[in-house]
Amino acid sequence: MLETMFNNVKERSPLVHNITNYVTVNDCANILLACGASPIMADDAAEVAEITAICDGLSINIGTLSRRTTDSMLIAGAKSNEMNHPVVLDPVGVGVSKLRTDTALKLVHDIRLSAIRGNISEIKMLASGSGSVNGVDAGKTDFVTNDKLDAVISLAKAFSDSTGAIIAITGETDIVASSEKAYIIKNGCSYMTNVTGTGCMLSALTCAFISANPDNPLEATAAAVIEMGLAGEIAKQRMRDLDGSGSFRTYLIDAVSNMTAEELVKGAKYEVR
Amino acid sequence: MLETMFNNVKERSPLVHNITNYVTVNDCANILLACGASPIMADDAAEVAEITAICDGLSINIGTLSRRTTDSMLIAGAKSNEMNHPVVLDPVGVGVSKLRTDTALKLVHDIRLSAIRGNISEIKMLASGSGSVNGVDAGKTDFVTNDKLDAVISLAKAFSDSTGAIIAITGETDIVASSEKAYIIKNGCSYMTNVTGTGCMLSALTCAFISANPDNPLEATAAAVIEMGLAGEIAKQRMRDLDGSGSFRTYLIDAVSNMTAEELVKGAKYEVR
Amino acid sequence: MLETMFNNVKERSPLVHNITNYVTVNDCANILLACGASPIMADDAAEVAEITAICDGLSINIGTLSRRTTDSMLIAGAKSNEMNHPVVLDPVGVGVSKLRTDTALKLVHDIRLSAIRGNISEIKMLASGSGSVNGVDAGKTDFVTNDKLDAVISLAKAFSDSTGAIIAITGETDIVASSEKAYIIKNGCSYMTNVTGTGCMLSALTCAFISANPDNPLEATAAAVIEMGLAGEIAKQRMRDLDGSGSFRTYLIDAVSNMTAEELVKGAKYEVR
Repeated sequence: MLETMFNNVKERSPLVHNITNYVTVNDCANILLACGASPIMADDAAEVAEITAICDGLSINIGTLSRRTTDSMLIAGAKSNEMNHPVVLDPVGVGVSKLRTDTALKLVHDIRLSAIRGNISEIKMLASGSGSVNGVDAGKTDFVTNDKLDAVISLAKAFSDSTGAIIAITGETDIVASSEKAYIIKNGCSYMTNVTGTGCMLSALTCAFISANPDNPLEATAAAVIEMGLAGEIAKQRMRDLDGSGSFRTYLIDAVSNMTAEELVKGAKYEVR
Repeated sequence: MLETMFNNVKERSPLVHNITNYVTVNDCANILLACGASPIMADDAAEVAEITAICDGLSINIGTLSRRTTDSMLIAGAKSNEMNHPVVLDPVGVGVSKLRTDTALKLVHDIRLSAIRGNISEIKMLASGSGSVNGVDAGKTDFVTNDKLDAVISLAKAFSDSTGAIIAITGETDIVASSEKAYIIKNGCSYMTNVTGTGCMLSALTCAFISANPDNPLEATAAAVIEMGLAGEIAKQRMRDLDGSGSFRTYLIDAVSNMTAEELVKGAKYEVR
Repeated sequence: MLETMFNNVKERSPLVHNITNYVTVNDCANILLACGASPIMADDAAEVAEITAICDGLSINIGTLSRRTTDSMLIAGAKSNEMNHPVVLDPVGVGVSKLRTDTALKLVHDIRLSAIRGNISEIKMLASGSGSVNGVDAGKTDFVTNDKLDAVISLAKAFSDSTGAIIAITGETDIVASSEKAYIIKNGCSYMTNVTGTGCMLSALTCAFISANPDNPLEATAAAVIEMGLAGEIAKQRMRDLDGSGSFRTYLIDAVSNMTAEELVKGAKYEVR
């Protein structure tokens, strides 16, 4: 499964349209190139429909949301739906402001999403209108402990059922769920939280994987989450002496760009429930 | 003093709201994570008040100023003042255009700032309406030589007196002053000017330090300036063979992310006047 | 020739005004510093004329075009023309949308450009209104094979003749042409396509070279293209074991920042037709 998902990205080299934030946009472009996809960034309402039309998928990220681009997100989303292109949503910081919450809820309501990826606080907020949002990182009371794992899986499956989207909740343990099946993924390392944009990069990567594997959004999303986590492990292992978060970020992109299908299959740590 | 300032950032992990430029924003986010703080970037007038309200401090940077975000800066500044959150201003390139000068002067006038950090040209322009501004770097006639040091210290103290803000003037020698006391800091290295964003990163770092040490803005700012300068020295010493400005930038962030209180205290080079 | 072009950048340290995209802007700023120039980024219509006036050259890039900044591009271009400052255009993705095509054509029509740099698909689109545009990378049917080289040189010379601008078409082989003379450049390596922004960086670098050598735009552009390609070769050769596209990007900027005139002359691979 992982091998097919991975190879399809390399072979089909999907063109991914990103309407994203200006903080991590360069890393998103580079991670897309690293995995074998091609990025295009465009956010003006006057051109997004045309651009989405020539792409294979659309990645929407509300990390530095502005009223100038909310319409662009809706227009591109509608066009992608019309053309049956996958759309991935990263609801960065949903709940921290009325603008973000309203926009994210509208995107979920108006667009048929292929996947939604966020931390547990963001997904809880989107799914139920509650949660402890603390900036753009997961709230402390929301950490997914083993105790809570079953509850989080149920939440993800139920939210997938109501939206039709694959739900990816990332944190110490990652959950990737359809309405009926969930991948519980143990790849990754805590050092990833020391670098900005690992979540944004993963959302872009997820869009590439689904765009290259449109008939298997659940497996495609799981493969993207595993690849990103495994890249984090490889990057961490590579750190020496004076290396810190700057080097780690470079090594993370290196690891994605050098990843092989064999390495991915061998390094994957997950179970299915 | 330095140890306390430093440890408080690590322990309190302040959430810093950044309204900043799109050139160096990724480095600012990564330097905040590296020092132990958390970043959030948001610049739309419709959400900045809510976002500032959940943060511990606000960092305003006019590096790519647009009329779309000047209101956001004023709204977030007013909200931060109302909640007694520290506000740091980086008046990038003030003097190069009427828009920047008018906006920077309005920010200084309307917002109670905790600290203002700039190069000597920018601070002179802000303080007195004159100076030799040459793009976003300090004008050549403005370099702080030993002769001029006393005059610059007096300028910084007087400007601190009139604004109530700590004034940080960075260059070959850094001056951090309240109305009554100045830190003359000799950390740093000239290679730092080969990388974009070292000033922006320092302003963000300063905001993290003041947010974690709200009762000691002078010492907090001095500690941030010393940490950044020391990180520059460590990064420079680490350069080998083919390393250039790309590697230096990575090493700079590495050095901040690996910095210990002990290292900071041992490496600090400053006097107080 | 190369030596003079290169040394003039180091000695004159031109200040380059960039109205560019938010994806690769940080790399553009760092490459300008690396080559010895200084960057300033400003895109608000209210300040671009003043900022361009204090700069030595203007670099316009439509990579994330928005209606907010199209006027800024035209205003800054007009001011630069009035002051006889060089203007370089990078028509990223022209042809992917009506907004980009119309804007790029208007920029070419209204502004006297010193150089236009793009991939073959972008230049064909601009020159003739046709071509196979596939996102922001060159269309596959547009790859410049040896067969097609003569045709591409003719196209570049004709387009230079009609616009008065030096035309730089970059790809596996790079062509830099005036109406009468073309440099065929063989520096560079295919790995450069694994990193976002190598084209944008080159356009910024070209602007620095022309700004420091305003009387020799053809040779200045050729020198910039050779330097960027050679930096790519040096970066590639330096890659070890686990290095991937993240490290390559760092090494690329390192190579520009460490480049010497001697190294450039020795490594240059080109012929003139």
